Amino acid sequence: MIECIPNFSEGRRPEVLHAIGQSITSVAGIALLDQHSDADHNRSVFTFAGEAHVVAEAAYQAVRQAAQLIDMRMQHGQHPRIGAADVVPFVPLAGSTLAECVALAHQLGQRIATELAIPVYFYEAAASRPERRELPYLRRGEYEGLAARIAHDPDRAPDYGPSQLGSAGATIIGARNPLIAFNIFLHTSDLRVAKAIARAVRGSSGGLRGVRALGMLVGGRAQVSMNLTDYRHTPVHRVVELVAREAQAHGTSIAESELVGLIPEDALIDAARALLRLPGLRDEQILERQIRMLL
Amino acid sequence: MIECIPNFSEGRRPEVLHAIGQSITSVAGIALLDQHSDADHNRSVFTFAGEAHVVAEAAYQAVRQAAQLIDMRMQHGQHPRIGAADVVPFVPLAGSTLAECVALAHQLGQRIATELAIPVYFYEAAASRPERRELPYLRRGEYEGLAARIAHDPDRAPDYGPSQLGSAGATIIGARNPLIAFNIFLHTSDLRVAKAIARAVRGSSGGLRGVRALGMLVGGRAQVSMNLTDYRHTPVHRVVELVAREAQAHGTSIAESELVGLIPEDALIDAARALLRLPGLRDEQILERQIRMLL
Repeated sequence: MIECIPNFSEGRRPEVLHAIGQSITSVAGIALLDQHSDADHNRSVFTFAGEAHVVAEAAYQAVRQAAQLIDMRMQHGQHPRIGAADVVPFVPLAGSTLAECVALAHQLGQRIATELAIPVYFYEAAASRPERRELPYLRRGEYEGLAARIAHDPDRAPDYGPSQLGSAGATIIGARNPLIAFNIFLHTSDLRVAKAIARAVRGSSGGLRGVRALGMLVGGRAQVSMNLTDYRHTPVHRVVELVAREAQAHGTSIAESELVGLIPEDALIDAARALLRLPGLRDEQILERQIRMLL
Repeated sequence: MIECIPNFSEGRRPEVLHAIGQSITSVAGIALLDQHSDADHNRSVFTFAGEAHVVAEAAYQAVRQAAQLIDMRMQHGQHPRIGAADVVPFVPLAGSTLAECVALAHQLGQRIATELAIPVYFYEAAASRPERRELPYLRRGEYEGLAARIAHDPDRAPDYGPSQLGSAGATIIGARNPLIAFNIFLHTSDLRVAKAIARAVRGSSGGLRGVRALGMLVGGRAQVSMNLTDYRHTPVHRVVELVAREAQAHGTSIAESELVGLIPEDALIDAARALLRLPGLRDEQILERQIRMLL
């Protein structure tokens, strides 16, 4: 079983999202786990799972559909992006490995580059160079900046595909461990506060290593929008507590959090263990886990 | 998934307990979680779980076996009892409800009354009258007292089955929520503080309805020892937060918590949902739950 969580640069037009969803679910053996759209971000995230080859086929069909229906020359939203199918990560679930996901990413990238003439970059565990491991590096300047440089800047040369950008932009494909997309709304509409808190908590500017964060306004409310890239070492509850402290220092507080997509069950159990002050809690004490082990 | 924790009036004869255990585990799909016998009480408790109909079948087989092997006219022990299979509670686990357990209790009661000619009483959430909710009420006078009154006292008339008591006695069947045994150690050795906090949090003295609490000294440390009887309405995290506040008012704080026995997975998920400020978290967003539903 492998999970795929492609991000598309469309969060407003239902007919486009319907078509992308159809291209995924029409592949036999695919379980569509989740779909989340954000009109402000103008972005949608699909989460699906299945056997490796089936998941790769569904990802290809979705990228092909998005490339036909999304014109990056006219696409705008609050979320940084370089392509119609912006990011396509593969994540190992029970019974598969990160190495298998890397191989799958490379195969899919080659196919997209060849059959759809879309420039492809590999990131995270599938990256071809260390500096390409990180999404912000690959997305700098966004679609417009990349379009201006891809033809002549060797730093921007794709891993596969043409060195020129069409209306579908470029696609970033990779393999990684589970990521938690976690947003925290604040009791303020002051964008500067959200940005300052994002700076304080994200690893790249001195905060927590396993956190990427942006401050933004969503529906008139300040939001710290985060990706937690390594929940075992940088757990969700520590991030929430740090955001709460920083918010307090700015004279505000957390209104509520939201999860985008799915979360591994252990991330929630870890949070309960920490916040209920239960350091000795063992897996075998969780009733349903005991039962599943016995059955 | 449903849990069943039947209590049998036998804690001394290993061959009888073996036969009762066999009658439970010989039902396919049953996970036997625990078995505990007490020779002084002359009583044993089995804990098992599985799908609803499987659990009901195992409970029936165990009651049938106990009725054949335990003669209440000759049974004595320190624990009050009215039957060979004395009490049979059903408890909802993840994916099931208390209402389902009430229905299961009623079905099992009818089957036991009809096929085994044993008088059946329903208690807790399955009770037919408010006064029958509590076990001590149903067990007053024990087997001997009930035998003398069941035929003519309307207060002792069974909910199902004959109004006369055979060698197997009567069986009390019910449905209740899981009970969580949860202790909180304080950074003090002052027993009075633990007792004051226990008074503040327990329902019987004005605190939280679903909490029973005692203050005690354990290994020289003050401890608030609690049973949480209804974690869905009185969740663990609210209890911990209230104890933390009360501890602060007494100039101390929580050292750590400990769990005695098992906890339902949902109690931990509920705690994470509350403490991570994630009111919108849905079950389907938990990766492994989604996958288990698909597999």
